[in-house]
Amino acid sequence: MGEIKVVTNILNSNNKLTAQNRKLLDEKGIYVINLMSSPGSGKTSILEKVILKLKNDLRMAVIEGDLYTTKDAERIEAQGIPVVQINTGGACHLDGNMIKNALESLNLDEIDILIIENVGNLVCPAEFDIGEDMKITVLSTAEGNDKPLKYPLMFEKSGAVILNKIDLIEYTNFSREEFYNDIKSINANAAVFETSCVKDQGIEELCVWLKSQIKLKS
Amino acid sequence: MGEIKVVTNILNSNNKLTAQNRKLLDEKGIYVINLMSSPGSGKTSILEKVILKLKNDLRMAVIEGDLYTTKDAERIEAQGIPVVQINTGGACHLDGNMIKNALESLNLDEIDILIIENVGNLVCPAEFDIGEDMKITVLSTAEGNDKPLKYPLMFEKSGAVILNKIDLIEYTNFSREEFYNDIKSINANAAVFETSCVKDQGIEELCVWLKSQIKLKS
Repeated sequence: MGEIKVVTNILNSNNKLTAQNRKLLDEKGIYVINLMSSPGSGKTSILEKVILKLKNDLRMAVIEGDLYTTKDAERIEAQGIPVVQINTGGACHLDGNMIKNALESLNLDEIDILIIENVGNLVCPAEFDIGEDMKITVLSTAEGNDKPLKYPLMFEKSGAVILNKIDLIEYTNFSREEFYNDIKSINANAAVFETSCVKDQGIEELCVWLKSQIKLKS
Repeated sequence: MGEIKVVTNILNSNNKLTAQNRKLLDEKGIYVINLMSSPGSGKTSILEKVILKLKNDLRMAVIEGDLYTTKDAERIEAQGIPVVQINTGGACHLDGNMIKNALESLNLDEIDILIIENVGNLVCPAEFDIGEDMKITVLSTAEGNDKPLKYPLMFEKSGAVILNKIDLIEYTNFSREEFYNDIKSINANAAVFETSCVKDQGIEELCVWLKSQIKLKS
């Protein structure tokens, strides 16, 4: 039994469940975002800011992926929108089966946009579609500008890349020029946003763009 | 075919190869470190600093794990010590078979300490022993103090935890108190070092401790 064959089986099974999830989500007219990054890039902080700006215009819901804790889900719940926690029990990414179970806990007739925060991991989640309309990858300036070339798949598959913690850039050796060149070479069509959750920068632009994407679908 | 069984098979196969690697490394009297963290925590920068301080006293070698690039290996090569690049081709962690192949490219009779820099990933590498005497996990202050509880396995299995980018702590909301409490609750025996590669802080203490660990083994 080769290792490659095993991975193929898991991916096939995931694709079937994901197709079912996607069909259901499409029928309900829900726009779905798969939000991914390394641990600590600021996915949850961005979510908090985006929810604050969009929740009066759009009916939002969040699925939180985490290995064991409910720390992030608690932060989202405090924003007053529906949130479901998936604890993967150590698994490194979300998959179709986990999303299927989570969707059963949500009232899909009352959601316009569903944001799924994946497990913090710049490698594995990129390989598993989970029924999203768009993948968005977050990178923080503190991680260094070499990451898109070192972990290209996630950046390649993303409709948008968010460069977060832009307030820290002056204290790092992060090269904006190399970052933009590398993103262009991997994925010329990605929208790129620079954000700081601490300084509340770039969130407005991100939200305007998100709304335009949702309109494009509906 | 259940998913759990598959994982067990892969782990068993890895354990067998790792036992062979460990036997060989022990026979050669080589102290082996498995250096792990999220992408962008500063593993390679710490390695550069440690090599600079230790290479005159100890015969060092490095195995660099990366998905596709040789960026990190080039930085280590510039330090003038033997380095072997493993490109995992997208796989999220190093395993026994990859290490076996890499060891064949090194002159094991001329190495006192071998540092293996794992793929940047706070989840998967923790599950795969690769013949190391000690796991060391790096966390950067920019990632946030909640990471040990969110990704406990890697911290639990580590002999040392390095809190890097300590020069950035004042620009973040990182709580030292919570971090130390959480590490204590997960792994009370871990040595903890605070480092800054930019400011050259904490590297001397880390190197003194590393030397003491190597002596303990030999």
